[in-house]
Amino acid sequence: MSFSPLINHLITALRCLPGVGPKSAQRMVFHLLERDREGGRQLSQILEEAISKVGRCEQCRTLCEEPICRLCNNPARDHSLLCVVETPADVMAVEHTGGYRGVYFVLMGHLSPLDGIGPEDLGVSLFRSRLARGEIREVILATNPTVEGEATAHYFAELIKEQEIRVTRIAHGVPFGGELEYIDGGTLARALLGRAPI
Amino acid sequence: MSFSPLINHLITALRCLPGVGPKSAQRMVFHLLERDREGGRQLSQILEEAISKVGRCEQCRTLCEEPICRLCNNPARDHSLLCVVETPADVMAVEHTGGYRGVYFVLMGHLSPLDGIGPEDLGVSLFRSRLARGEIREVILATNPTVEGEATAHYFAELIKEQEIRVTRIAHGVPFGGELEYIDGGTLARALLGRAPI
Repeated sequence: MSFSPLINHLITALRCLPGVGPKSAQRMVFHLLERDREGGRQLSQILEEAISKVGRCEQCRTLCEEPICRLCNNPARDHSLLCVVETPADVMAVEHTGGYRGVYFVLMGHLSPLDGIGPEDLGVSLFRSRLARGEIREVILATNPTVEGEATAHYFAELIKEQEIRVTRIAHGVPFGGELEYIDGGTLARALLGRAPI
Repeated sequence: MSFSPLINHLITALRCLPGVGPKSAQRMVFHLLERDREGGRQLSQILEEAISKVGRCEQCRTLCEEPICRLCNNPARDHSLLCVVETPADVMAVEHTGGYRGVYFVLMGHLSPLDGIGPEDLGVSLFRSRLARGEIREVILATNPTVEGEATAHYFAELIKEQEIRVTRIAHGVPFGGELEYIDGGTLARALLGRAPI
């Protein structure tokens, strides 16, 4: 026994969302149908619109509905400073610091040979042609401090070293507000290695 | 700073789903746009279709896209036995036991004066006219064993007592597989009161 066909279809369709299992999908369906049909209708329309229109910025590969995103199009940004990040969410994280005025290059992932994700999937050709235009003076590699992120950063660092461009990596060290006692050994070792005069 | 307008709209629209906060909405958007556009498109279509077509069964008030649901329409069911439940999910729970062959009446909620939910919102007129047809011999009140569910069950029991129909309430007691040590006092007291000869 199960619900009526359309309700079953909707429960199945909602499970394409990450983190939504059968019970939460069922809860979502009843919430939408009993309490928020207007919200559900809007969600349906905006989802369709976003899926049809959102593509990638031709310059930085981030997700956006215009050919070139608003950050790349902003003449007030420093277009000689390029920050390489893994995802659009990382762009937001760097923007929220309020201290960065350059532009971005979004890999949309990291090198992961086991998943079949190689340099081409990260837009390495676009990245090369961007460097070849000669506008960039410094590339900041801000991939995640994970094994894959480090490997990706090294790959891009090697690429850039062929040219006369400064390459930097975001600092590793103890996070602000943390207590040494609870910080893992690897991080603490990097923090000691990277010590700076005060 | 934020994402492009369409992505922001989609993040906001997803938050109409219960249990979805800003971070999980963002994660859903990137998952759909980067990895599962086909799933997102299907979700959009089925959501629109379900919201337009799903209404309530004219006999039992459950959610379904036909005028009368498949359970009410099934001549093999015992139409003289009526089980009153709070939600369509409760119908499924009773169906999954495999031991019930009667039909249902779905309140779509419970009495809750503080939220302004009175008997009319639970379809009490439809329920009365259903009883008046004279087909029902027994009504099983299977509302939740909560304060509101008990109050609702008592309200409906009073309604039915005016007529010559048997009214029963599902048994309260210790759940199967539970250990007495960990069962709350209220439940154990009810289990003792409701003891039966073996």
